[in-house]
Amino acid sequence: MSDLDVSQVLAWLETAAQMLRDSFQEEREISQKTGNLDLVTDMDRRIEQFLVSNIREFYPGDRILGEEGTGDQVEEMSGRVWILDPIDGTMNFIKQQENFAIMVAVVEDGAGKCGFIYDCMRERLIWGGPDMGLYYNGQPLQPPQDQELKDSLVAINWQMFADNVSNVQALAWGSCGVRIQGCAGTEFIHLLLGKQSVYVSKLAPWDYAAGRILCEAAGLRCSTIEGAPLAWLESIRGVFATPRAYESAIRLLNMQ
Amino acid sequence: MSDLDVSQVLAWLETAAQMLRDSFQEEREISQKTGNLDLVTDMDRRIEQFLVSNIREFYPGDRILGEEGTGDQVEEMSGRVWILDPIDGTMNFIKQQENFAIMVAVVEDGAGKCGFIYDCMRERLIWGGPDMGLYYNGQPLQPPQDQELKDSLVAINWQMFADNVSNVQALAWGSCGVRIQGCAGTEFIHLLLGKQSVYVSKLAPWDYAAGRILCEAAGLRCSTIEGAPLAWLESIRGVFATPRAYESAIRLLNMQ
Repeated sequence: MSDLDVSQVLAWLETAAQMLRDSFQEEREISQKTGNLDLVTDMDRRIEQFLVSNIREFYPGDRILGEEGTGDQVEEMSGRVWILDPIDGTMNFIKQQENFAIMVAVVEDGAGKCGFIYDCMRERLIWGGPDMGLYYNGQPLQPPQDQELKDSLVAINWQMFADNVSNVQALAWGSCGVRIQGCAGTEFIHLLLGKQSVYVSKLAPWDYAAGRILCEAAGLRCSTIEGAPLAWLESIRGVFATPRAYESAIRLLNMQ
Repeated sequence: MSDLDVSQVLAWLETAAQMLRDSFQEEREISQKTGNLDLVTDMDRRIEQFLVSNIREFYPGDRILGEEGTGDQVEEMSGRVWILDPIDGTMNFIKQQENFAIMVAVVEDGAGKCGFIYDCMRERLIWGGPDMGLYYNGQPLQPPQDQELKDSLVAINWQMFADNVSNVQALAWGSCGVRIQGCAGTEFIHLLLGKQSVYVSKLAPWDYAAGRILCEAAGLRCSTIEGAPLAWLESIRGVFATPRAYESAIRLLNMQ
């Protein structure tokens, strides 16, 4: 297993970002996955294929879990595994032409090594991991302040918020307010930049793998809503938060 | 009453925007207005005073309604009235240092003449009115497509969404999803750029005056949740939407 060349991954991300920016000049093919709120475009597949082909060429022994299924069937986490979300926030990509992200996570024998989240329309790129620190647009990123829930904004998946799943509305009322971007990647960026203290959402592995690695490297807490440790291959209802806000969030989300 | 010099107003907005950007280098004075979710800073007051003093100098016969109360007591809309929100989205200004807006509306004898909304951190400035068309960062702005509710994103005030005021959750489920920025100004920008089809919120006069003028000039529909025409001096629960999405929204919001 060769060492990870971060600068090479960053170059792939820049190329992918330019493909996405250029794509707004063309008509898109859009189709439904699980329903009318779960869309996929030809660009989701093109970006994933671009990343997969590069990883296959330079890291032939690695395995790849990609949202669009062009990687491998990954059922356990031995060795090095790449987890890819080529366009996180596809609905925003289609409807807003912004507020989406490319996300890449690298996991070795079940330990998060490096995460990359790139909001390429706003040119906000955060990457890093436990052994390398955090970087924001090429500069070292200081971990966010340990804000309290009551003094900060929170992000909550809108469907969970409407249905008050696990009491999430109590979390909202205990905060300075709710903001919803509809993209896990940009919500993680806001957490890492200290713009909000909590993010609660239902997420597939590619939605949270990079964000989890970055949050843990920044000293933030990550778990399921029930407080259980995160796996890598399961869809979850997750909480990502500053340590202080995490304590409040877990208490409120698990009140009987 | 002298003619309105739009380029002069744009120059004031640029100066105010620079004051706001520079303000992040300093400590802020923050105090509560009606409660812990309704904050005001020294910058809200400084920006309003800057705008008020310029309007007083160049348009001495005009009256001014400002959020921070440094203008006039305006109880009816005769003559020319300026409606000012020096920082719309003060909570975001404090917590995110972005996603806020400066808003200015000019109303003559109760008719909206010109609105300005400036998201100065992202450098998105929209201005215009019924007799002058719409401009986005200096370029003419085409009105947004007449999107259907079911094919588009919507923005809903998070407190109304939590409490399902006027059935707003049905609006959400009838759409492609909810996005919440917590700033009326940036929600109006998203409407005007076609990134969402509906905005529902509870708003004070300075929160909606500029947005209403711009939306009406763009062919969008604006009313109270009950479908009544908007006044200028009342706090409202308002709906702002593309014509097609407006029909769906009013029906859903008024279902028994």
